[in-house]
Amino acid sequence: MNYTFSSFAHGLKSSAVRDILKLTQGNSIISLAGGLPAENYFPIDAVREAFERVFAEGGKSSLQYGLTEGYSPLREAICKRMAAQGVSVKPENMLMTTGSQQAIYLLTRVYLSAGDVILVENPTYLAALQIFKASGIQVVGVEADQDGMLMDDLEAKLNRYRPKMVYVTPTFANPTGKVWSTERRKGLLAQCRSNNVLILEDDPYGEIKFDANATYPSIFSLDEHPEDSAVLYTSTFSKTVVPALRTGWIVGDSRVIAQMAKAKQAVDLHSSTLDQQALYQLLAHFDLDAHIQTIRDEYRTRMQLMKSLLQDARFSDLRWDEPQGGMFFWAMLPEGIDASELLKKAVEKGVAFVPGVDFYAENPRRNTLRLNFTHTDNASMKIGLDRLAEALVAYKQSV
Amino acid sequence: MNYTFSSFAHGLKSSAVRDILKLTQGNSIISLAGGLPAENYFPIDAVREAFERVFAEGGKSSLQYGLTEGYSPLREAICKRMAAQGVSVKPENMLMTTGSQQAIYLLTRVYLSAGDVILVENPTYLAALQIFKASGIQVVGVEADQDGMLMDDLEAKLNRYRPKMVYVTPTFANPTGKVWSTERRKGLLAQCRSNNVLILEDDPYGEIKFDANATYPSIFSLDEHPEDSAVLYTSTFSKTVVPALRTGWIVGDSRVIAQMAKAKQAVDLHSSTLDQQALYQLLAHFDLDAHIQTIRDEYRTRMQLMKSLLQDARFSDLRWDEPQGGMFFWAMLPEGIDASELLKKAVEKGVAFVPGVDFYAENPRRNTLRLNFTHTDNASMKIGLDRLAEALVAYKQSV
Repeated sequence: MNYTFSSFAHGLKSSAVRDILKLTQGNSIISLAGGLPAENYFPIDAVREAFERVFAEGGKSSLQYGLTEGYSPLREAICKRMAAQGVSVKPENMLMTTGSQQAIYLLTRVYLSAGDVILVENPTYLAALQIFKASGIQVVGVEADQDGMLMDDLEAKLNRYRPKMVYVTPTFANPTGKVWSTERRKGLLAQCRSNNVLILEDDPYGEIKFDANATYPSIFSLDEHPEDSAVLYTSTFSKTVVPALRTGWIVGDSRVIAQMAKAKQAVDLHSSTLDQQALYQLLAHFDLDAHIQTIRDEYRTRMQLMKSLLQDARFSDLRWDEPQGGMFFWAMLPEGIDASELLKKAVEKGVAFVPGVDFYAENPRRNTLRLNFTHTDNASMKIGLDRLAEALVAYKQSV
Repeated sequence: MNYTFSSFAHGLKSSAVRDILKLTQGNSIISLAGGLPAENYFPIDAVREAFERVFAEGGKSSLQYGLTEGYSPLREAICKRMAAQGVSVKPENMLMTTGSQQAIYLLTRVYLSAGDVILVENPTYLAALQIFKASGIQVVGVEADQDGMLMDDLEAKLNRYRPKMVYVTPTFANPTGKVWSTERRKGLLAQCRSNNVLILEDDPYGEIKFDANATYPSIFSLDEHPEDSAVLYTSTFSKTVVPALRTGWIVGDSRVIAQMAKAKQAVDLHSSTLDQQALYQLLAHFDLDAHIQTIRDEYRTRMQLMKSLLQDARFSDLRWDEPQGGMFFWAMLPEGIDASELLKKAVEKGVAFVPGVDFYAENPRRNTLRLNFTHTDNASMKIGLDRLAEALVAYKQSV
């Protein structure tokens, strides 16, 4: 057989992070690559009890097909959580998804067509870029500084490209760790509203903030909502509870959500209902907020350890900012060092990271890299950074 | 905001079955509509034990992100089950999916582009049609009799339309319940191979056969496989274990599977790993074959009850064949009766079914309907058919 694939397949780059994750599974490589939470802190007892409750209370009915939109009691519980954060939505404004990744995919599928333009931060989340590019969408990066996109460049590109959507991760962006100022959030919103451009606000990390008192209002909360909002907001329990449940959600105008639900019918009928029911039970019986505070504290400690290790003279070449939350250090090597080449040396030495190049929509800086600080315990992190330092030496000797 | 949707969204029809399912949830309507298994026979104790084993044996690692391709021990276990059915595949020939629905979607996404042609049975599975049509694919029905597609018409349409793929459900087709003869399976395979046309063989119902000794070789098993096969074969545990786990799989040439895995990375990273781990434990510790035999016996009994009810004089207008497996009766009303109009009367009387019209790729017969016999217990089935008879009377009085 001569298999011939679609333009979507031809446009798909395999995700570097996923490929590295595959490479490092089951061997001795210390991975600072993935966006993996710390297993030590997984609330396994709460998850186990949640499943026990599902079977005990739901009985055999808990094992039947469910609604495409998601398990209704879970959607109501998430509405309550969002209300406590000052966001008012109803279940009909919400679609449950297989992680927030699927929310990005589904919105792209129903809102954008090949040839459309999307504006993004540059660099930005690579698996979102993967979707946009394979879908034949033109992806244009907007210039930014530490507070978010530059409003002048945004305005110029809105005018020049007439995009249908802007994709942003305004709180602890992946990969940069950046937090947008409230002013820039409002600025983006105002410009998008006046140009009838949709905003996809991706917020997987917002709850992983190191200053518990800091507030980072979602762009969705700043707009009129949920109906007629310019914003679709997506988040996930993968970082705050556990990834294995694969449960994300997206909220916004009910007409957009309804289109996404129709698409989800076609894509997979619905996500795991057992996972959704278990998450509902967990939210009902487990103090998730206390758990999130535990994670914040631990991740801040791990971030500070990595920071102190990166301050070592062996890394004096690297430039980075201290993240205020999230999971990553974003570091810049001296010009001329290709992080993809450095990765080969690093894997030989037994440590992995993600080269920055794949996070760029355009004009990639090959001397960038992303280091995860949440997944690795203290001892391994020290060894990992030692190995990275050795890899740097080996790289420099080789060129 | 003025929301403007993609051509995919515009091409999506909401699934009639899913909409009816939504309508009937939580009220007193007896639904003969969905393809729902009987809850009574869900192996809830085995499922609960399987999850207990996952947590006890896997510990916190069981809650981490997994591989896009799926949980490796589960893929190996499915390979063993398939080997017992005479099909030799390796894990790299297999992708785990969120139900077989997702397998159909992903293959369509990576193999077909807008403007391509696909040949199908007519009528066929409506949620597959939904994917093809929304994707801008031209769907052409091939004429068929009780043994499957007619080889002459297949040849003519292969020549005329130069399709990229043929989609078939050769064993207990949805909605018709039809079983293809081995000769027709071989004929389809030979013609597709010589024309380099891919076959997507969808087999959710093959194990639900009423004659345990009957064998229905998959088209995949009749071809050289797994590498260089003209066939991608997909199935699911939704019908034989429980739907809530949402676990399906697809097997075929490893190059095609690799493209689908890349697409799945973009679509949702991976399906629920807890569900996949639980299914692995269930396959290891539960006699699934004995369970499937129990289901077969029960579903045959339910089918026979529905058959005897349909033989009542009140249904003398209906034409149908006795299904040899699967979940459905496919019935034809007299010409001129619109099953969609009949459904309105039926819902008023308290019973639901699926009008046949949405199962047609082209030239729909509006006087057809699908009745599910697996989900409803004996008492409800009798009441349901009484209500259907009343609806028929009411319909005739109204026209």
